[in-house]
Amino acid sequence: MKTTPRILEVRTRILKKNDEIARAMRRDFERLGLLVVNIVSSPGTGKTAFLKETLARLAARGEPSAAVVGDLETDNDARRLAESGVPVRQINTHGLCHLEAEMVAEHLAGWDLAGLRYLFIENVGNLVCPTSWDLGESLRVALLSVTEGEDKPLKYPGLFNTADVAVITKIDLAEACEFDRDLARANLEAIRPGMRILETSAKTGHGLEAWLGELAGRRARLTAG
Amino acid sequence: MKTTPRILEVRTRILKKNDEIARAMRRDFERLGLLVVNIVSSPGTGKTAFLKETLARLAARGEPSAAVVGDLETDNDARRLAESGVPVRQINTHGLCHLEAEMVAEHLAGWDLAGLRYLFIENVGNLVCPTSWDLGESLRVALLSVTEGEDKPLKYPGLFNTADVAVITKIDLAEACEFDRDLARANLEAIRPGMRILETSAKTGHGLEAWLGELAGRRARLTAG
Repeated sequence: MKTTPRILEVRTRILKKNDEIARAMRRDFERLGLLVVNIVSSPGTGKTAFLKETLARLAARGEPSAAVVGDLETDNDARRLAESGVPVRQINTHGLCHLEAEMVAEHLAGWDLAGLRYLFIENVGNLVCPTSWDLGESLRVALLSVTEGEDKPLKYPGLFNTADVAVITKIDLAEACEFDRDLARANLEAIRPGMRILETSAKTGHGLEAWLGELAGRRARLTAG
Repeated sequence: MKTTPRILEVRTRILKKNDEIARAMRRDFERLGLLVVNIVSSPGTGKTAFLKETLARLAARGEPSAAVVGDLETDNDARRLAESGVPVRQINTHGLCHLEAEMVAEHLAGWDLAGLRYLFIENVGNLVCPTSWDLGESLRVALLSVTEGEDKPLKYPGLFNTADVAVITKIDLAEACEFDRDLARANLEAIRPGMRILETSAKTGHGLEAWLGELAGRRARLTAG
């Protein structure tokens, strides 16, 4: 495409600025012992249901956490997440296909992060565009639902390759969708060898304790490091 | 965002060029009596399964059709679609989040379109970025699966607002997903009043005859007009 280099040139400058902001944020977060998790996936993978269960279970254990959630429009997700009783803020991008570090920073303004252990950022539902945007997170988690097709990691390699953990969601629907677990795992492994893969259901609770264990382990390494 | 205006300025110039190419393509397509359909949706909505069934049923009726299919990587979808026996070409965008008119034009080069009645363009799976890119189509169809959540039209209004028809897919999974049909329809209606809405299942064949009827009606109006 003749058009691509011009877009790329502008985008590269903007991404560089985003990276600088994100790096400074990550330093601040890690100094506070705060594990920041960037959750990325296709629309409809079940990010909000997964996150709502995560927040409720952390709250029940007395682990202080909070969330910011990105959508083009509506505050539906923030309202759903707030039912878990933890602080939540909505970012509306008004047409933009991803979150950027500066948007997150703006929406964290005035929040006392010092008492928190976990901060979750639910990105805009998109398997392409969030890939290149560092939000200052220490952990990037890519969700993949059993309803989506096992070949999504091969078709969207960038997003899965830049994630630290893959979470397969809606595992309760695996049979109805004729989900091929081995194929999905092999495709994830092909794109990101050695990737940690968890299978979960926000509806039945399957796999959520393992996910909380993963979070605790990651945070322990953060505060130890 | 301070960064947005610079991106927007470049993007506006590129979109304008895309629109010019797309308009010229549409004139050529319509002169040939060829109905070109741009299929947009989230990743995993079932675009390929839906399109494969469509192509097979058109072929069985002796209606010549063809397809081009966009993905970041792999030719999985082109190979699946080619099983229907019709001509198919794969476009790999290598990281780009949408198709552009020029890419479609390049991949149609050398094809004899004169004998065709329908040409389908399966866009990259993305509920945001394909919105602004006219591919020269006469019909834009947005797919929404019952597994995705009824509020997607509210959260991604641009994509649903620029579509002519909404197709609800995987209706066979409606019960397992506790899909609220009335809510989904009301949300589509709120974003695009009077929108034609079809319910389908590529697995059971539900609604596919109505969809073929819709296509035939649209093509009849095209050739009459």
